[in-house]
Amino acid sequence: GMARIDAGRSVRCGMPEVVLAEGKEPEAFAEIMLAQVKAAGRCVATRLSPEHLDALRARLPPDVRMEHREAARAVILSTGDEPVPPRGGTVAILTAGTSDIPVAEEARLIAEEMGCEVRTAYDVGVAGIHRLFSALKDLIPADVFIVAAGREGTLPAIVAGLVDRPVIGVPVSTGYGYMGGGEAALASMLQSCSVLAVVNIDAGFTAGAFAAQVAHGGRRE
Amino acid sequence: GMARIDAGRSVRCGMPEVVLAEGKEPEAFAEIMLAQVKAAGRCVATRLSPEHLDALRARLPPDVRMEHREAARAVILSTGDEPVPPRGGTVAILTAGTSDIPVAEEARLIAEEMGCEVRTAYDVGVAGIHRLFSALKDLIPADVFIVAAGREGTLPAIVAGLVDRPVIGVPVSTGYGYMGGGEAALASMLQSCSVLAVVNIDAGFTAGAFAAQVAHGGRRE
Amino acid sequence: GMARIDAGRSVRCGMPEVVLAEGKEPEAFAEIMLAQVKAAGRCVATRLSPEHLDALRARLPPDVRMEHREAARAVILSTGDEPVPPRGGTVAILTAGTSDIPVAEEARLIAEEMGCEVRTAYDVGVAGIHRLFSALKDLIPADVFIVAAGREGTLPAIVAGLVDRPVIGVPVSTGYGYMGGGEAALASMLQSCSVLAVVNIDAGFTAGAFAAQVAHGGRRE
Amino acid sequence: GMARIDAGRSVRCGMPEVVLAEGKEPEAFAEIMLAQVKAAGRCVATRLSPEHLDALRARLPPDVRMEHREAARAVILSTGDEPVPPRGGTVAILTAGTSDIPVAEEARLIAEEMGCEVRTAYDVGVAGIHRLFSALKDLIPADVFIVAAGREGTLPAIVAGLVDRPVIGVPVSTGYGYMGGGEAALASMLQSCSVLAVVNIDAGFTAGAFAAQVAHGGRRE
Amino acid sequence: GMARIDAGRSVRCGMPEVVLAEGKEPEAFAEIMLAQVKAAGRCVATRLSPEHLDALRARLPPDVRMEHREAARAVILSTGDEPVPPRGGTVAILTAGTSDIPVAEEARLIAEEMGCEVRTAYDVGVAGIHRLFSALKDLIPADVFIVAAGREGTLPAIVAGLVDRPVIGVPVSTGYGYMGGGEAALASMLQSCSVLAVVNIDAGFTAGAFAAQVAHGGRRE
Amino acid sequence: GMARIDAGRSVRCGMPEVVLAEGKEPEAFAEIMLAQVKAAGRCVATRLSPEHLDALRARLPPDVRMEHREAARAVILSTGDEPVPPRGGTVAILTAGTSDIPVAEEARLIAEEMGCEVRTAYDVGVAGIHRLFSALKDLIPADVFIVAAGREGTLPAIVAGLVDRPVIGVPVSTGYGYMGGGEAALASMLQSCSVLAVVNIDAGFTAGAFAAQVAHGGRRE
Amino acid sequence: GMARIDAGRSVRCGMPEVVLAEGKEPEAFAEIMLAQVKAAGRCVATRLSPEHLDALRARLPPDVRMEHREAARAVILSTGDEPVPPRGGTVAILTAGTSDIPVAEEARLIAEEMGCEVRTAYDVGVAGIHRLFSALKDLIPADVFIVAAGREGTLPAIVAGLVDRPVIGVPVSTGYGYMGGGEAALASMLQSCSVLAVVNIDAGFTAGAFAAQVAHGGRRE
Amino acid sequence: GMARIDAGRSVRCGMPEVVLAEGKEPEAFAEIMLAQVKAAGRCVATRLSPEHLDALRARLPPDVRMEHREAARAVILSTGDEPVPPRGGTVAILTAGTSDIPVAEEARLIAEEMGCEVRTAYDVGVAGIHRLFSALKDLIPADVFIVAAGREGTLPAIVAGLVDRPVIGVPVSTGYGYMGGGEAALASMLQSCSVLAVVNIDAGFTAGAFAAQVAHGGRRE
Ligand SMILES: Nc1ncnc2c1ncn2[C@@H]1O[C@H](COP(=O)(O)O)[C@@H](O)[C@H]1O
Ligand SMILES: Nc1ncnc2c1ncn2[C@@H]1O[C@H](COP(=O)(O)O)[C@@H](O)[C@H]1O
Ligand SMILES: Nc1ncnc2c1ncn2[C@@H]1O[C@H](COP(=O)(O)O)[C@@H](O)[C@H]1O
Ligand SMILES: Nc1ncnc2c1ncn2[C@@H]1O[C@H](COP(=O)(O)O)[C@@H](O)[C@H]1O
Ligand SMILES: [Mg+2]
Ligand SMILES: [Mg+2]
Ligand SMILES: [Mg+2]
Ligand SMILES: [Mg+2]
Ligand SMILES: [Mg+2]
Ligand SMILES: [Mg+2]
Ligand SMILES: [Mg+2]
Ligand SMILES: [Mg+2]
Repeated sequence: GMARIDAGRSVRCGMPEVVLAEGKEPEAFAEIMLAQVKAAGRCVATRLSPEHLDALRARLPPDVRMEHREAARAVILSTGDEPVPPRGGTVAILTAGTSDIPVAEEARLIAEEMGCEVRTAYDVGVAGIHRLFSALKDLIPADVFIVAAGREGTLPAIVAGLVDRPVIGVPVSTGYGYMGGGEAALASMLQSCSVLAVVNIDAGFTAGAFAAQVAHGGRRE
Repeated sequence: GMARIDAGRSVRCGMPEVVLAEGKEPEAFAEIMLAQVKAAGRCVATRLSPEHLDALRARLPPDVRMEHREAARAVILSTGDEPVPPRGGTVAILTAGTSDIPVAEEARLIAEEMGCEVRTAYDVGVAGIHRLFSALKDLIPADVFIVAAGREGTLPAIVAGLVDRPVIGVPVSTGYGYMGGGEAALASMLQSCSVLAVVNIDAGFTAGAFAAQVAHGGRRE
Repeated sequence: GMARIDAGRSVRCGMPEVVLAEGKEPEAFAEIMLAQVKAAGRCVATRLSPEHLDALRARLPPDVRMEHREAARAVILSTGDEPVPPRGGTVAILTAGTSDIPVAEEARLIAEEMGCEVRTAYDVGVAGIHRLFSALKDLIPADVFIVAAGREGTLPAIVAGLVDRPVIGVPVSTGYGYMGGGEAALASMLQSCSVLAVVNIDAGFTAGAFAAQVAHGGRRE
Repeated sequence: GMARIDAGRSVRCGMPEVVLAEGKEPEAFAEIMLAQVKAAGRCVATRLSPEHLDALRARLPPDVRMEHREAARAVILSTGDEPVPPRGGTVAILTAGTSDIPVAEEARLIAEEMGCEVRTAYDVGVAGIHRLFSALKDLIPADVFIVAAGREGTLPAIVAGLVDRPVIGVPVSTGYGYMGGGEAALASMLQSCSVLAVVNIDAGFTAGAFAAQVAHGGRRE
Repeated sequence: GMARIDAGRSVRCGMPEVVLAEGKEPEAFAEIMLAQVKAAGRCVATRLSPEHLDALRARLPPDVRMEHREAARAVILSTGDEPVPPRGGTVAILTAGTSDIPVAEEARLIAEEMGCEVRTAYDVGVAGIHRLFSALKDLIPADVFIVAAGREGTLPAIVAGLVDRPVIGVPVSTGYGYMGGGEAALASMLQSCSVLAVVNIDAGFTAGAFAAQVAHGGRRE
Repeated sequence: GMARIDAGRSVRCGMPEVVLAEGKEPEAFAEIMLAQVKAAGRCVATRLSPEHLDALRARLPPDVRMEHREAARAVILSTGDEPVPPRGGTVAILTAGTSDIPVAEEARLIAEEMGCEVRTAYDVGVAGIHRLFSALKDLIPADVFIVAAGREGTLPAIVAGLVDRPVIGVPVSTGYGYMGGGEAALASMLQSCSVLAVVNIDAGFTAGAFAAQVAHGGRRE
Repeated sequence: GMARIDAGRSVRCGMPEVVLAEGKEPEAFAEIMLAQVKAAGRCVATRLSPEHLDALRARLPPDVRMEHREAARAVILSTGDEPVPPRGGTVAILTAGTSDIPVAEEARLIAEEMGCEVRTAYDVGVAGIHRLFSALKDLIPADVFIVAAGREGTLPAIVAGLVDRPVIGVPVSTGYGYMGGGEAALASMLQSCSVLAVVNIDAGFTAGAFAAQVAHGGRRE
Repeated sequence: GMARIDAGRSVRCGMPEVVLAEGKEPEAFAEIMLAQVKAAGRCVATRLSPEHLDALRARLPPDVRMEHREAARAVILSTGDEPVPPRGGTVAILTAGTSDIPVAEEARLIAEEMGCEVRTAYDVGVAGIHRLFSALKDLIPADVFIVAAGREGTLPAIVAGLVDRPVIGVPVSTGYGYMGGGEAALASMLQSCSVLAVVNIDAGFTAGAFAAQVAHGGRRE
């Protein structure tokens, strides 16, 4: 279980090659992706617009496979057929509502790319506490929990009060009015009396990668 | 490595009994502490003022032991002599500067109370990168890293770029001027392109408890 | 159950004469209080400092009774002995922690001055959900609930999810770090998916007076 | 007039089944709605875009009735013909200007769905105080008042100064410039020296549901 | 009634010599004041602490007269006995509460130093509208109105709705909780549907000087 | 020069009938306008979108004259031909840049509707100080100055340092980046050491109406 | 190396004639540009939309040359053929990611227009520190460094820790979530323990012009 | 004039050894200072409280010289007598008011420690433009200008409009009310249409060190 120090890219900033599409010109984006998949054999992009997808499709060489994960607003390019090698570790992902699912799916994609098993329970925040209890039962083998929630962002604290594993809160930019862009959720998670760690609003990528690092923990030895 | 669902208090809100002294009347605080130590055998308080300490001292019964951890602004009450039973897992704690040490010490106290080994490297942010490298070498066996930093709060991202274990950033309320109460550090950690999870400004307690939950991971099986 | 339109003072700005001590010079404050009690027979002051109390004591005429409600940081002056006439209606007041009690006590004082019965359950937020359930059982006859909570301010939403009467959330300025002055609690109450109405941070007076207006409702006919 | 504790959904988060359309994919939204109306016989959606409406229309089975409340940006689905059973209680709704009407209409719809009688007086803020007085006369039998206002948000406090029933302020996101998205109105309602409770900016749903809970009060016995 | 362009100091930054004491070392402050009174014959200081006053007293030469205006937290130094020459124009100053009086008194002092007649009506915000009406009657000859108010800051808009002369709103930093340092009052004045101009929070000096400029208008011809 | 108290609409909230188009449904807007012009003979609308204009055009009866002031984003409806009767008083309006002109033109329109003469000098902020001086010379007879400026909003303070008449600053929402929506300009005007009164960001209407009230002053007697 | 005082335009607000297109009507913009190029022989516009470009193209006289710098969102008009005369001095420009390039290109254009040599190294923030080192080697002769970075904005501080010349940080509005519009980057640069000066978010123009002023320094003698 | 890359401490974070006293325990602070002066021969501390000074005095060994710069809230320790070797370059420092002088003096101390000549002109913001002109004449040989200003922070932009050398704005935390802690000054400097670079509020150290780096420029060759 020893950490390694490494100055190379794949350790430095998230493990798979992951490109943040948002904010990049579609053509420049497509070229970066193709260069990455050539160099690394596999490459993921998140927060895609339809324009990014079109630019990628228009330039895709025959020997590169492209998998579009619509629910995650993501795409995976690969040159080979071999699946991601499992590294052990299970990540549980819950959402409070249905609007939180795209962020949760982005987290799932990254955790799976990092070789973890992922179990999910979506839209368990508004239904009665019984539904949350039964959802949690299926997630028991998890090493770590990701809980995504918008508006007041309460669900992560409730989950953290029920399990003894680390819980990562992801504030989601649903809601309207005062601090309705995810800020209320972020604030309430940071102030929570439960033990929670937090990532940026809508940051499915960071939550997934951090959770995978936690989940690897016990399997490395 | 299975998670447990539990609705009892010691799971719900941090594992040891930990009382936040700040914001409580000293007398009420002292009574809460004594009630807790009677019930649980051991009890910790954080963010103590001298008045809290005085109130505790004035009411301390002969059969309760009190340990004052000045650097952590904390106190431990206990009725027995047995040390905290080790649960395995190692937590590394780094600080960027000397002003971040009280927050780091609070994190350390909680992680130790939860049975983890803790290794520290303080004030490694301003010195050259070589000092950080050599500090990291001593911390290699850690399962998880806590990095506390004020002002621009860069150190956690740098550490996360060098190790492959989870890194928890703790923004510290040092600094002055624009967003100088820890907000700049919080914002830069949340926006970091490195993979980081974050806790509230100055939240040594949360960082320590969350890190211990991570560190327990591999040892539970 | 008909509302009355009235342009007189006792309707316009809260029903008993209530003076906000904070921000007033102690001497000026004392004179205002004595003028009010002379005119109205009874008068309340909230958010008192020791200086306000001293100034009042120094000027108190023999025929004015003064009752100091320390836990509520309030004082009641009266010229007669008759208690507040009951108007019917029951208000339940809960707090998440012990730091929220002064705000809750201020709400209680006002609701009682307005002729309501008040039942309280303090510090029920952190203890297990079972304690909250049993606390709620004692409060069942209430017409309306006031729930005061600091930090992430979750308790009001939980209570609103369990009872079918109106629930008023009062954010409290406990907590530290990011939005730790009650703003996180305010934001999470406003964003809550539960049905809640909210008052200003620490506004025990407004919560108590509003709740009394609700509680009067069914009894007026 | 006793409160009931209930962990089921219809108590927990507003009484009728109400779906917040905003932030949901139109197709997913339509499916949720149809599932709900099947299960509960009646179902409401708020904050609809034209796309949500189209998706609903395209999937509407012949045995489900759809009522579009354009002014409220809402829709009601039902499988039967029976109207909402009256539960007693009257809610008065006022707006300061014409831009506040959609929010007021959303509140009205929810209060009516919860079995209350609703009386309205719109655009009474800018006209002289005489128009407000005569408008209030028609609303006298109300158990509770909802007052929606944008820009500086003064009207709720004025109404609260004139009637002795509870007044709920709803800040509306009209206005421009500094805090022109409803924040100035929210702030001035929270700081008001009149006795007011407040809901989120534009939160017609919450205001209507809370008011209905208040209005039920006296009729339950 | 023609404006004059002038690059000299007495036009550039307020007309009398006015020194802002706050933020200056007491000794440096006293020396600045004495230099100014020597040069100009008359000199005002605002926002004084007791330390500033002491430093001034300790250095006061026998030929300089010092007038302490405690309610305005101000002091006037002069070398001669002649009063301020009247320039015509009347300024009305109202406050909503008693806490707003120091700011109003600062405005009054400046307007009087600029040769205007000043009429005041303090604490007319909370009492019934009748008291405001009768207060306004005494102020009718005014050329311009200054209205100081804290908390929700509504009074200036009400006054502007009743008179046809210019109304200047002064937000005051009384209040607590959300935007309780005068920000709510500032925001509601800026968003007001009445015609208002506004100055900085607590800026009695600016309000007084601006009002005097307005009041001079009709008298200059 | 005596002020009049009046509870009627034309005094209460700006003098001509002025409708704020923004935030109103185009059809509802057109109907309000036509009702107003019928009742008052003349009526102005500000902050128009092309949709508002189209709706108005489509419904315009033959006996109503419509004047579109494009530069001011405004429209004037009238039933007669008589021009606005002059009431005396001159308002000077300056802008720092060309982007501030629409706001300035809105102010001009209102001041003219209130019977004032208006003189303008636009885009005098960036050119050398000599251009500002010569522009000011032409504006000398003004009773009051309106100065509109975006970005850092410095021009109003410079003008206030050069003339002895009241200067009203209007922050404009040009600029980008940090506080680039007019907030930096608002803040710098409020903090100005020059004597300035301020209105909301982009609030040409308020600036124009307030300035006209000032300009009327000397002419009323 | 002596500074010159000059009140003329070309010194006052940046040296070449530079027009900020954003916020100007396309037609008005085109006319301003053509007037400037007539008067000065050369003229630059920044932050262009396609509409600005079209308006310019439609009005371009045959004797005016137009150079479109797409990557910089800028355009250069000139009447002659002579290139910008070199004034000596070298400016280095780095970016953390590819999204920061438009801002960097705007800075480059201005610095070149002011007669400086410019060297660039783009997208060196995420790759390993080795790539930054080798990039810096090529930039060694620079007199001053501009470093543009979004999200957490760390790169400027890292560069400032490695070189002994002045480093100017430019926060860029990439990123999402909490303070994701460049505010986190701005805050972290202002709080940096490295020696940095900062310009507004996305302010390539200011960075380029300031850097050219620094670079001229040593060459003026 | 070539830049050097260096990973050692004296390049990384400002050139002299400078310790930020604020936020450090006095005893710990004193020990750090003594260690530094032993190692480096010379050492500076800024933002000292009287307690820091006392702790230093109590521990000062006979062979260490201590120079207290009260106006700069700073102290210099040295073991030898040799003065700072001049490196060429002149820095001009201006302040708008007298409250800005401590920040300006901190900047001066650092620039002098880095071997620059410093010329100052304090309190030139409020006096007429003529005084600023004559002050600037004495500062003409400067390579770079530092301008410190609180409240609206206008002076840096005015200076930048008059000289052709780089101007660094330092916002100062004087002022009260809205954004009165230096934020208004910061915002107006960042939004300035003049060419300015900016440092953190009150950051005299950063301004001085950055200016010295600029001033060294032309002298290095
Ligand atoms: N959805 C996302 N949210 C946050 N960070 C991301 C996301 N997707 C990719 N990243 C990270 O952002 C960094 C910068 O991306 P790029 O601009 O593509 O070089 C990459 O190294 C990724 O690890
Ligand atoms: N317009 C609205 N504003 C606030 N909350 C709403 C609104 N409409 C529905 N809700 C509530 O939001 C909760 C979450 O909705 P949903 O995402 O549809 O499950 C529901 O239980 C509703 O009670
Ligand atoms: N451009 C504007 N900015 C601010 N207030 C305005 C503007 N135009 C009209 N108003 C005022 O806004 C008030 C409310 O307008 P309405 O919503 O049209 O009743 C009117 O009484 C006008 O005096
Ligand atoms: N991209 C830019 N960012 C900031 N300022 C600019 C930019 N482009 C031009 N400017 C400056 O903004 C000032 C005002 O521009 P204008 O509105 O065109 O008169 C000009 O004097 C330019 O120096
Ligand atoms: Mg837990
Ligand atoms: Mg890492
Ligand atoms: Mg409920
Ligand atoms: Mg009332
Ligand atoms: Mg008026
Ligand atoms: Mg003036
Ligand atoms: Mg450097
Ligand atoms: Mg210049």
